[in-house]
Amino acid sequence: MSQQERATRTQTALIRSAAEMFERYGYEKANLNDISSGAGVSRGALHFHFDSKAEVAAAVERAAAHTLRRTMNEVPSQETSALQVLADLSHRLVHLLLWDVVVRAGFLLSCEAGSRVRTDLCLEWRSYVHGLVARAADEETLAPGVSQEGAVKAVVAATVGFVVLSRADKEWLSDRTVTGFWSLLLPSLADPAIMAGIHPEGTAAPAVGRGRTGV
Amino acid sequence: MSQQERATRTQTALIRSAAEMFERYGYEKANLNDISSGAGVSRGALHFHFDSKAEVAAAVERAAAHTLRRTMNEVPSQETSALQVLADLSHRLVHLLLWDVVVRAGFLLSCEAGSRVRTDLCLEWRSYVHGLVARAADEETLAPGVSQEGAVKAVVAATVGFVVLSRADKEWLSDRTVTGFWSLLLPSLADPAIMAGIHPEGTAAPAVGRGRTGV
Repeated sequence: MSQQERATRTQTALIRSAAEMFERYGYEKANLNDISSGAGVSRGALHFHFDSKAEVAAAVERAAAHTLRRTMNEVPSQETSALQVLADLSHRLVHLLLWDVVVRAGFLLSCEAGSRVRTDLCLEWRSYVHGLVARAADEETLAPGVSQEGAVKAVVAATVGFVVLSRADKEWLSDRTVTGFWSLLLPSLADPAIMAGIHPEGTAAPAVGRGRTGV
Repeated sequence: MSQQERATRTQTALIRSAAEMFERYGYEKANLNDISSGAGVSRGALHFHFDSKAEVAAAVERAAAHTLRRTMNEVPSQETSALQVLADLSHRLVHLLLWDVVVRAGFLLSCEAGSRVRTDLCLEWRSYVHGLVARAADEETLAPGVSQEGAVKAVVAATVGFVVLSRADKEWLSDRTVTGFWSLLLPSLADPAIMAGIHPEGTAAPAVGRGRTGV
């Protein structure tokens, strides 16, 4: 293994360990000793990569955003209606959040109050949702009279709620929960002409447990 | 003012100040010096009422739960359909969350990870929602085939999302946001026979800004 490979591997381990600590103790309480020992490296090795806890957190958020974007791009988006793509994406996001502690911690960090500059995963997810609802309107597959802003807000708020509530119970990040949500929302969102062809349970079968973080 | 009145007034001021600090800095970062000076009292006066930050947080949560319960009980619940009561309650809750920093901090504390024993406002809200969805099913005003569990989860997750997202933008706690949510959800939840009589914007006009915390 080259020195470069070793450095990358250490950095990946540190980001994963930090994500676990942030999730378990919250940003404020997590400390650099626990993060380095969780990664099986010395405090000195941590400081070779990161100057501060804020820098580690920023790396977690960047890694999470990278994985989110890659996963979102993997969902085929052109052959089907925008609302189906949106349901599919939300299933993929929830799988990612369930299986990948880095994405989960990155998402929670971005929802937390604080003044650190950061990659805002909540905002990125909102812009995906916004783009797809706008596309549904363009396609005329959005039910007449539906407020685009209302639709975006309902989806974003529910997703954030799922992640926050999953701290106590991982069932909030299940296909069952997401399918139940879409079963209630889609009949209002989708034009009746296309509703029969839309699947609240998603069409792009997610690869369970395959969530890897691309650091 | 009697000694008892003064003590009650000081305790109320401490709870309000603590709620502000918890909201601004999060539980971990908030400190007792800021809480006592925010209430205009000495650190000694704080310790007369509370032994630790955990005790102050528990008092915030108890006060928030008290206000939540009182407000929920004020909404007339028998003369109208359970789903209308649910929409009305959610508008009241969102008003409370917007106007009363103690309720907002108590709700956020209960959503935060951590091992402190506490009054769980998220759970209390969930049990209100659960009770009303079950009542709608009994009344046969729930649309046929709707999963009660799915309905409860959608409402609870969206509410938690509204509160968490309101840290960055208070618009998430507006009547407009809540009405938009119910406009999308009610057509799926309500039996078509009663849908025309249900108002997503709520029927029990909330008293804007009147949210007081009953401590």
